[in-house]
Amino acid sequence: MTNEELIFTFKTLLRSKETLPMKAAIKRSHPADIGEALAHFSPQEVATLISLTPKKRRALVFGYMDHALQREVVEALEKPALVELVTHMPHDERVDLFQQLGEERQKVLMPALAKAEQEDIRKLTAYEEGTVGSIMTSDYAVLRSELTAQEAINHLRMVAPDRETIYQTFVINGDHQLLGTVSLKDLILAEPDTKVSDIMTLEPPFIRADAPDEEAAQLIAKYDLLALPVINGGEKLVGIVTHDDAMDVSKAEADEDFHRMGAVGDLSEPAHKGTVSALAVSMKDATISLLYRKRVFWLVLLVFGNIFSGAGIAYFEDTIAAYIALVFFLPLLVDSGGNAGSQSATLMVRALATGDVRLKDWGSMLGRELVVAGLLGATMAVAVSLLGIWRGGMEIALVVALTMQIVVIVGSVIGMSLPFLLSRLRLDPASASAPLITSIADAAGVVIYFAMATWILDIPAAL
Amino acid sequence: MTNEELIFTFKTLLRSKETLPMKAAIKRSHPADIGEALAHFSPQEVATLISLTPKKRRALVFGYMDHALQREVVEALEKPALVELVTHMPHDERVDLFQQLGEERQKVLMPALAKAEQEDIRKLTAYEEGTVGSIMTSDYAVLRSELTAQEAINHLRMVAPDRETIYQTFVINGDHQLLGTVSLKDLILAEPDTKVSDIMTLEPPFIRADAPDEEAAQLIAKYDLLALPVINGGEKLVGIVTHDDAMDVSKAEADEDFHRMGAVGDLSEPAHKGTVSALAVSMKDATISLLYRKRVFWLVLLVFGNIFSGAGIAYFEDTIAAYIALVFFLPLLVDSGGNAGSQSATLMVRALATGDVRLKDWGSMLGRELVVAGLLGATMAVAVSLLGIWRGGMEIALVVALTMQIVVIVGSVIGMSLPFLLSRLRLDPASASAPLITSIADAAGVVIYFAMATWILDIPAAL
Repeated sequence: MTNEELIFTFKTLLRSKETLPMKAAIKRSHPADIGEALAHFSPQEVATLISLTPKKRRALVFGYMDHALQREVVEALEKPALVELVTHMPHDERVDLFQQLGEERQKVLMPALAKAEQEDIRKLTAYEEGTVGSIMTSDYAVLRSELTAQEAINHLRMVAPDRETIYQTFVINGDHQLLGTVSLKDLILAEPDTKVSDIMTLEPPFIRADAPDEEAAQLIAKYDLLALPVINGGEKLVGIVTHDDAMDVSKAEADEDFHRMGAVGDLSEPAHKGTVSALAVSMKDATISLLYRKRVFWLVLLVFGNIFSGAGIAYFEDTIAAYIALVFFLPLLVDSGGNAGSQSATLMVRALATGDVRLKDWGSMLGRELVVAGLLGATMAVAVSLLGIWRGGMEIALVVALTMQIVVIVGSVIGMSLPFLLSRLRLDPASASAPLITSIADAAGVVIYFAMATWILDIPAAL
Repeated sequence: MTNEELIFTFKTLLRSKETLPMKAAIKRSHPADIGEALAHFSPQEVATLISLTPKKRRALVFGYMDHALQREVVEALEKPALVELVTHMPHDERVDLFQQLGEERQKVLMPALAKAEQEDIRKLTAYEEGTVGSIMTSDYAVLRSELTAQEAINHLRMVAPDRETIYQTFVINGDHQLLGTVSLKDLILAEPDTKVSDIMTLEPPFIRADAPDEEAAQLIAKYDLLALPVINGGEKLVGIVTHDDAMDVSKAEADEDFHRMGAVGDLSEPAHKGTVSALAVSMKDATISLLYRKRVFWLVLLVFGNIFSGAGIAYFEDTIAAYIALVFFLPLLVDSGGNAGSQSATLMVRALATGDVRLKDWGSMLGRELVVAGLLGATMAVAVSLLGIWRGGMEIALVVALTMQIVVIVGSVIGMSLPFLLSRLRLDPASASAPLITSIADAAGVVIYFAMATWILDIPAAL
């Protein structure tokens, strides 16, 4: 059923109060579609619809609802229904939900949960936002190396309903340290009495719980993993990151970098620990007030950046008054430096974000950038000198061509270096947004242009 | 072993010609790491190293090598070794490799392959670059609905070695039409004599082979799938897209949009059909010539864009000469319009790319944009009018404030509309790069500013 059909069916059935066809409709639809459709109903209606969902699928459907709705539905649910729901949610989604509840509600819910659940929530909430720990889940499947393949399969069959995945399992020793991994495929293909220790993969890729979450996504992409094991300081296995969560992290990172680069703040609600990616607001749902707040900071800041350009112009007022024709080339020259700079910054920001280029590569990147920018500047200088001859004669053409060569190189070097500098200062390189680079390169361009003109055209400088 | 250790080990062993420790090193390392390490060896050395790899893992290691090296190694391999390698590669990687070979080499290789392989390659090469067909693989596992769970597991055990995944399998009828899907987990949890038809999921998400590849990635992310079934015009199952390939597509799309937005061309080598994402060159490996070519087009194009700004300035030379103080505010006002525009464009490009906003939403987005831009413009106008009073008095302040209000609105509307327009024309919305928006908004800003000044300051216009 399409989204519209599902919404229509739910509306009709809510009105008629017939539960059987409702259950059938819910059974036939993918939980992601149900979660999406539920956004069109009131929290009370959603609570009713959730109660008609087979128990096994409730937590699944709930996990696909957006976080604002989850919070409201939680308020509308009776305590026993809530406890039952929370108990069956995947551990990573459960802790996300928990952190969004008010402190009061947390205090009511916590004692109603089983000891193991309480302990699990406490552990997972301890990790800082943006770390692997904040996105990992603790409902993974482990095996001991002494088991045979057949025993391992029997064990997995038993625990499967409560595990996020049984396709990739983790072999541990008595101290819960990671020895290796084994896939369900390997277990199925092995002779039934082969030992797990004989088929497991040694030294599998892993990550520490305090590493940045995007590194987990990078490892999962590099090694084509279904699940990446997470270990703590004591080398103990504490969780896994699954491929679907990695995909969400990559998308959230790409969105964030993209927005920063365009000088827009992060489109997320005030941070709730551990729920960064999930809470990023879709563009369609962003309120006017949110959009205003995320854009105004950069716009106003950049105004002050431009004051330097203005001051540069004011300083050279006499030069401009003497050769008013120079103003014709002002936007062109100044923007070219900014454009070259924002190109370099774009390439570097993305390359640093994907781990393609590292901090130590700055030197070699700079060398290459100088060559590329030199060539680009020369090309542009030739193009613009023709325009200079036509509009102002040979002398103006010379000023314009030389300026172009220099501003393209200066802009490019600023553009490629700023992301490295920010990265070094442990700030997000994507904050070297195109408009920021443009503003800096603009101010540099104004000074270079008029200094060049004053020198070549032999105009007495101001003062 | 780290990358450096692996390279060192390979180097030592290649010199000593001891094959046993080499085999051990290869066995202990992840194929992705081996593939990465091999980039440091000559094609002849790689061919030697490949021949020491256990047959079962050769195709796997080969799949992780970069495409340029793959081509060279293929030239260095003897025909029987090549046929054996190609036969065992995953079908999607095999067809990518095949398309990179010269026509001569294709003609030599093709008849040496088994009929089924020839047929498979022919079918997969038929899909256009950028479509789902060009990234899907044909080595998926199918089941008939009459089988019992136990029979299904036995069947999967038999075919597993040649299938990309057995965790998600596809149930088909006699005409190879998709009836549903069943996961290995469901099969393992079911009673052994339950029929597949009783446990399969009906109406699973699917995609058509001629749909754009990023739609497959979006569906996989939305439904948290391991594999998405692909059907052709006749509703027959023709392939699957796996989660790891979807992740590569998302990354390639994000890179591409990011680069376009920064006015940098696509950093891929000349297109080979069906290998877009795989051939995208890493920033670190990009040659000077490639970087020059990808950047020069936009830079030169934008110069011509700026000529309009220059022409606007030239037209108002008298106004400028009369009030040289106006030039102080030129960069500031003009850039603010451009900055507001590139913010709007950034938000829209990403929202359109992720499917968050659709073409039909233009109207509602425009309404909201006008309100947000109006508020932003008002804020900026207040800020800049203070500066106006200080630098030029009340009249200048009025000109500057009014101009600011208008350019921010105009810039924002241009910025948000251009991505929609490009999308409508079936062009990539990301081509509405920040520098392009800035150039357009700049030219508009110059005209608005000086027209406003001429009108309010009552200067006789040129002519």
